[in-house]
Amino acid sequence: MTTRPAPYSGVIPPVVTPLTADGELDRPSLERVVGHLLDGGVSGLFALGSSGETAYLTPGQQDEVIKVITAASGGQVPVLVGAIETTTNRAIERGRAAAALGADAVVVTAPFYTRTHATEIDRHFRDIADAVELPLLAYDVPVCVHSKLDPELLLPLAADGVLAGVKDSSGDDGSFRRLAIGARGIPGFAVLTGHELVVDAMMLSGADGSVPGLGNVDPHGYVRLHEAAVRGDWAAAKAEQDRLVALFDIVGAAAPGTASATAAGLGAFKTALMLRGIIATNVMSPPMRRLDAAETARIAAHLDRAGLSRA
Amino acid sequence: MTTRPAPYSGVIPPVVTPLTADGELDRPSLERVVGHLLDGGVSGLFALGSSGETAYLTPGQQDEVIKVITAASGGQVPVLVGAIETTTNRAIERGRAAAALGADAVVVTAPFYTRTHATEIDRHFRDIADAVELPLLAYDVPVCVHSKLDPELLLPLAADGVLAGVKDSSGDDGSFRRLAIGARGIPGFAVLTGHELVVDAMMLSGADGSVPGLGNVDPHGYVRLHEAAVRGDWAAAKAEQDRLVALFDIVGAAAPGTASATAAGLGAFKTALMLRGIIATNVMSPPMRRLDAAETARIAAHLDRAGLSRA
Amino acid sequence: MTTRPAPYSGVIPPVVTPLTADGELDRPSLERVVGHLLDGGVSGLFALGSSGETAYLTPGQQDEVIKVITAASGGQVPVLVGAIETTTNRAIERGRAAAALGADAVVVTAPFYTRTHATEIDRHFRDIADAVELPLLAYDVPVCVHSKLDPELLLPLAADGVLAGVKDSSGDDGSFRRLAIGARGIPGFAVLTGHELVVDAMMLSGADGSVPGLGNVDPHGYVRLHEAAVRGDWAAAKAEQDRLVALFDIVGAAAPGTASATAAGLGAFKTALMLRGIIATNVMSPPMRRLDAAETARIAAHLDRAGLSRA
Amino acid sequence: MTTRPAPYSGVIPPVVTPLTADGELDRPSLERVVGHLLDGGVSGLFALGSSGETAYLTPGQQDEVIKVITAASGGQVPVLVGAIETTTNRAIERGRAAAALGADAVVVTAPFYTRTHATEIDRHFRDIADAVELPLLAYDVPVCVHSKLDPELLLPLAADGVLAGVKDSSGDDGSFRRLAIGARGIPGFAVLTGHELVVDAMMLSGADGSVPGLGNVDPHGYVRLHEAAVRGDWAAAKAEQDRLVALFDIVGAAAPGTASATAAGLGAFKTALMLRGIIATNVMSPPMRRLDAAETARIAAHLDRAGLSRA
Repeated sequence: MTTRPAPYSGVIPPVVTPLTADGELDRPSLERVVGHLLDGGVSGLFALGSSGETAYLTPGQQDEVIKVITAASGGQVPVLVGAIETTTNRAIERGRAAAALGADAVVVTAPFYTRTHATEIDRHFRDIADAVELPLLAYDVPVCVHSKLDPELLLPLAADGVLAGVKDSSGDDGSFRRLAIGARGIPGFAVLTGHELVVDAMMLSGADGSVPGLGNVDPHGYVRLHEAAVRGDWAAAKAEQDRLVALFDIVGAAAPGTASATAAGLGAFKTALMLRGIIATNVMSPPMRRLDAAETARIAAHLDRAGLSRA
Repeated sequence: MTTRPAPYSGVIPPVVTPLTADGELDRPSLERVVGHLLDGGVSGLFALGSSGETAYLTPGQQDEVIKVITAASGGQVPVLVGAIETTTNRAIERGRAAAALGADAVVVTAPFYTRTHATEIDRHFRDIADAVELPLLAYDVPVCVHSKLDPELLLPLAADGVLAGVKDSSGDDGSFRRLAIGARGIPGFAVLTGHELVVDAMMLSGADGSVPGLGNVDPHGYVRLHEAAVRGDWAAAKAEQDRLVALFDIVGAAAPGTASATAAGLGAFKTALMLRGIIATNVMSPPMRRLDAAETARIAAHLDRAGLSRA
Repeated sequence: MTTRPAPYSGVIPPVVTPLTADGELDRPSLERVVGHLLDGGVSGLFALGSSGETAYLTPGQQDEVIKVITAASGGQVPVLVGAIETTTNRAIERGRAAAALGADAVVVTAPFYTRTHATEIDRHFRDIADAVELPLLAYDVPVCVHSKLDPELLLPLAADGVLAGVKDSSGDDGSFRRLAIGARGIPGFAVLTGHELVVDAMMLSGADGSVPGLGNVDPHGYVRLHEAAVRGDWAAAKAEQDRLVALFDIVGAAAPGTASATAAGLGAFKTALMLRGIIATNVMSPPMRRLDAAETARIAAHLDRAGLSRA
Repeated sequence: MTTRPAPYSGVIPPVVTPLTADGELDRPSLERVVGHLLDGGVSGLFALGSSGETAYLTPGQQDEVIKVITAASGGQVPVLVGAIETTTNRAIERGRAAAALGADAVVVTAPFYTRTHATEIDRHFRDIADAVELPLLAYDVPVCVHSKLDPELLLPLAADGVLAGVKDSSGDDGSFRRLAIGARGIPGFAVLTGHELVVDAMMLSGADGSVPGLGNVDPHGYVRLHEAAVRGDWAAAKAEQDRLVALFDIVGAAAPGTASATAAGLGAFKTALMLRGIIATNVMSPPMRRLDAAETARIAAHLDRAGLSRA
């Protein structure tokens, strides 16, 4: 019922980055991931997000990822590209690289590693927006950067045209609600949730769309969920979400105490895509290990229970 | 009384990175900082540490910093260079760049931004040590990376020859004590404290040396402190440390609530160096602001009280 | 559509504790609060929760609160009573006192102050359930106790009949979703959300009811919201929730930087109740200050905008 | 060289609370602990601290502990008593109970469970000092209460005569150094470290004494350490401290992943005292488990290595 254009809406998965056995970018696999996501009906692609192992890739590897995704998607949907760097000048450098390689928008977090302050975060986004000739989205991910982007910070940046949207992975749904309500009067500012287990609930709260890591594995499911929510069929949205919550149990397949949450979670997504025949290996960037045969078997069982085809 | 060679010992300040009014590297100022530190009697230089605004510099800027510091020091003392990057491959890339530019050792943190795990941190250091042809030191800085490097993790890496030392900025002095005791039997592994307010106490605990940010401002004081501790004159060491603790109050000169702790702290170091006539400006990397005239006046008063000459 | 009895469902506000100017319990005001909540249609009362300043009341004061609330409610709705104590034996002592004074159920957190462990939290709830002759609900409030109660911990306790429900104030809605899904097969286990800004979304996720602090101020609104959600009218639920989110802005009335979030938030609830003519003062327990005239005026303006009557 | 009276100095162990097999207070064992500590030369006793399982004891049990310790010590040394409660009125109630039972001073933390603010912490200590007729010491223990007591907060309270001292268990040694320097000009304000692994270093930093949990096990060692530091024999102090650091390894005797750090640490202290023939059992308060036979054997080996007699 919103009249706002909402240039970024729908399902915009954070695309995983497939690797070869040698740890190099696996281009054919990445092309197949893009095709799989487009086939699922996604409305955008988020390259070099946390799920894309962006923090594990050198600048040169990142450039290759952007090239493959923009080429493979062929302009069918916008490609958002993460410029996930510790501070302003570094993010500008990567944002400009993304622009030169065909990105449609750039996604940036608060400064990290260093301690920061609200006035510095504000200037950070303003300086980047000035320096990079692309729409800028903020990525609110306190679990990674250890700062929260409050509505009081984001909404003025949105109103000033600095930000074209936010991906909220904060897990703070009260803050998200206040953000979504505040955003109603700001045309061209998109509110996206990264909370893949409660997309229905966040859509009810006012999200324009979602950026679900699990959407790599089952984009069709997330698109059905989104469409049900948009047409107000909340029972259908909830049923789809509940099914996806069960599927998300794949992130618990790694043997307890043997890997980081990142390695277990992204490793499960990659393993599922491997089992589905879309990518060639479940190799992870160092220093993460790949999931082993027993862990892979647990994921296969989850896919079967979720009714997802395997190769 | 240790018989261990301790290749890294004494005072090894984390060198600040002076900037011009335009925010570019100020080479003549950086050369003067190096001269000032060598004049103070430091036994090494740590380039591109947190105090060097490493997280704010692009790879190209970092290369320039390394070039200036290695050239200006002319081999008089070893130059340790930070390769402070989110994960393994990125740290390797920067570590190799440092090696090519003349660094004597590389300093690396645990992975950050991403969540990590002890097994992954272990592999991280091992992979980097394999790939970079320089001694490797670990930098334990939980306030930045949100993981702690425990003695149980570090000592096996030291015993295996992976690590040549650690800079401990954890603030966990119980852990530091256990590390220092454990390190006694491992030749060639240096235990350095980054805790500039208690260097005397950490030397008593068993440190080989220190990496004090405040050492940029008063290297002579930290060298006197180190030498007193080495000769067992703890009363003299304590008196010198107490004087330096008072000087450290410069980090409180920024108006409350207007800047991050990083901007206030590093800004104070730069402002003090400017007042001492060593660097040209107190400009900070974006998005940090520089300290203003009133804040600068407060720092000048601190320098006078500490008996430090001004330009 | 659930066939589960759900003994605890609907709106169960955490009842505030009104104080006299001298800081003593204001019994007539507390009786009026109870009447106000019952008039609003609530289905239970939660005495001595965080919103009831339970952590600020001595055992003797807590006993008085229980007596007034149980007497004033006269059995119309169940009275849940918090036994918010650091560890097992202390919680048992307070739980037994609540039972003797007529409570219908006891609500307990994980151990706090001390560090704890999953095995110890499990035993904590089992020992309390054994020792106190009342249904036991878990209160998941990491912001206070610094431990999270995971579904993997709670669901076995529910299945074993140890727990009759949970109040989730964790802010972790992914965990909440998994809990709600897991609870479906466990009759007599209630899943309640304490997240007052997203009750509609949490009801969609599967909550049986809510425990909203703001429900003290506007119980009628929360009851309308609950009823809309139960009948599947999500648009009406969302509209009511959005109105309550705006009302929640009263928690920002305290002058910035002058009070804790607890003092600002609970102080706003009390001030609103005072303005509505229900309680006599907005006095807070020491060491919290009461909101002043300017802050009170800001809250009055919020009430007017929300269409709530004032005395 | 201080001219300050320092009423609280030397070694003041936080006395453990022995329990019978039934979980009741074991009075004879507690009396023997007091005798053991006095024999070791301690200069005070801290009852109902974290090491005394204070958070696990009901008010009635706490009263019994105070009675036994004050009676057993017979005025030979001052008895400090913890009033570790969430907020002001509760701490006052327990502080008055301690005063009535013969305590010489009361020890209080910042408010916990609830969120708090510097202005509220300041009022908290002032209200308690007004209401309890005993010297008041602050207990800085962020790991338990999740707030830090900064020198900027404590020193004005000391100068105003509100506080007679602080027990610092913050692990923030830079803050401790600034506190110790600031306290020099304030007669009658004692600065005590709770950091049992670096007492020598903290004495060098300016501590008046220590409150070491491990001092229950080896009070003679901590007294030797203190005396060496006071006479300026830092090499002897360091050697004694290093021996005690090795002894502290007993806290790692619990099987990994099976108990909280509190249960493992305090359980090790109790087990060591049991092995030394001073207390009858190593029973812990619920929900903590006691250490088992294999874990006890590991502790026995540590005692032997440390040269401590066993029963």
